[in-house]
Amino acid sequence: MAMAPRGFYLACLLLGSLGFLCVLFTTYWAQRWRGGLAWDGSLHMFNWHPVLMVSGMVLRDGAASLVYRLPQAWRGPRLPWKALHAALHLVAFVVTVVGLVAVFRYHSHAGVPHLYSLHSWLGLSTVVLFACQWLLGFAIFLLPWASLWLRSLLKPLHVFFGATILALSMASVISGINEKLLFSLKNATVPYQSLPSEAIFANSTGLLVVAFGMLVLYVLLASSWRRPEPEALADTQPLLCERA
Amino acid sequence: MAMAPRGFYLACLLLGSLGFLCVLFTTYWAQRWRGGLAWDGSLHMFNWHPVLMVSGMVLRDGAASLVYRLPQAWRGPRLPWKALHAALHLVAFVVTVVGLVAVFRYHSHAGVPHLYSLHSWLGLSTVVLFACQWLLGFAIFLLPWASLWLRSLLKPLHVFFGATILALSMASVISGINEKLLFSLKNATVPYQSLPSEAIFANSTGLLVVAFGMLVLYVLLASSWRRPEPEALADTQPLLCERA
Repeated sequence: MAMAPRGFYLACLLLGSLGFLCVLFTTYWAQRWRGGLAWDGSLHMFNWHPVLMVSGMVLRDGAASLVYRLPQAWRGPRLPWKALHAALHLVAFVVTVVGLVAVFRYHSHAGVPHLYSLHSWLGLSTVVLFACQWLLGFAIFLLPWASLWLRSLLKPLHVFFGATILALSMASVISGINEKLLFSLKNATVPYQSLPSEAIFANSTGLLVVAFGMLVLYVLLASSWRRPEPEALADTQPLLCERA
Repeated sequence: MAMAPRGFYLACLLLGSLGFLCVLFTTYWAQRWRGGLAWDGSLHMFNWHPVLMVSGMVLRDGAASLVYRLPQAWRGPRLPWKALHAALHLVAFVVTVVGLVAVFRYHSHAGVPHLYSLHSWLGLSTVVLFACQWLLGFAIFLLPWASLWLRSLLKPLHVFFGATILALSMASVISGINEKLLFSLKNATVPYQSLPSEAIFANSTGLLVVAFGMLVLYVLLASSWRRPEPEALADTQPLLCERA
């Protein structure tokens, strides 16, 4: 099993920069062209929706999913890393739910029906899948009752659903940015079709999110930066039996 | 390495049914609500775009990507399966390009600018990535010049980009269906927001595409139905040295 910490830290630096840029670009889009952020039921409240959904995605996929890829996590007790993995995902989930509250409150305030577009159907399905994944992960991999056999059986599924949730998040973000631009630039003096600077900027933000997601998928699925498998399989300590 | 042909054929049956339904639903949407298909530069010509893009995706991801997962491909000479893999991908690519021609011709005919939406930016990037993947795959894995070392190095990248192209296709299809519904139902008597039957049907088609993509990703990345690795690594025959 090749160890390549230098390459890993370079990938981390690139991931961190890309993730930071995704959030920065989404926030700048809201501030520069959409009137900024507020928690008042107006369109400014809606603007929290893309900012928080992208932040939740970056936190979940960038920080939380890759905890086990840190060389520090390859040896020694696994529990602190499991706890960090679960805690970061929980933070990402809370950020995501607040992002949902923003759009539901705005819709209620403006009299817009909830959950009619394919974007909303897919986005909500992704969040529900994310919640199920967290609960199942907590129950199977952190609580002490599950056998090694059950954990070994479910681990590839847990990783698979993690990667799948990332892919669905990307699709949700892309369709969301596209939908928002179609709405916002419908009656603009320079419409979406004429590619005003806002459209170029927001389209580029979408491609940044895709680049970020692709890099996470690469580190998660295709790189060799991971805990050696036999050690991982022998490591079975559950939450309640762990000693520091 | 567990062999589970019965489970595999069940997954194949489910994949085939889902893929067929994706194409059927997209075609029915065009026929029932969008005036049908024609090659005349009109909106009916545009309708070929979703039908062919979804067909190309189903062909590429369902048929072409999973060739190596067939138990028949696990043993014996690998070349026929490589050739089938490349040929099916080529057919899928041609279908995809005809799908692009449909939308470009329609835009030119209707005076709509090309390539302004995020959907189009992402969709075109995905097709370009697909073309690069095919050319590189052909040059490295089918032509005889590449060493075993180079093939072993590039194989995980080839699989990774295959899965990534699938994820990007899903995002492109979802944003495309969403965009088309926002356009078509803008001035409808029952608008998108009121969820007319067309909207429910097309949204469901989007979720079908997602279910199809998830199942392909599962079979490709997480299942145990694959050629045993040592045999695969020892198998190095290139195109021009193959004997039947």
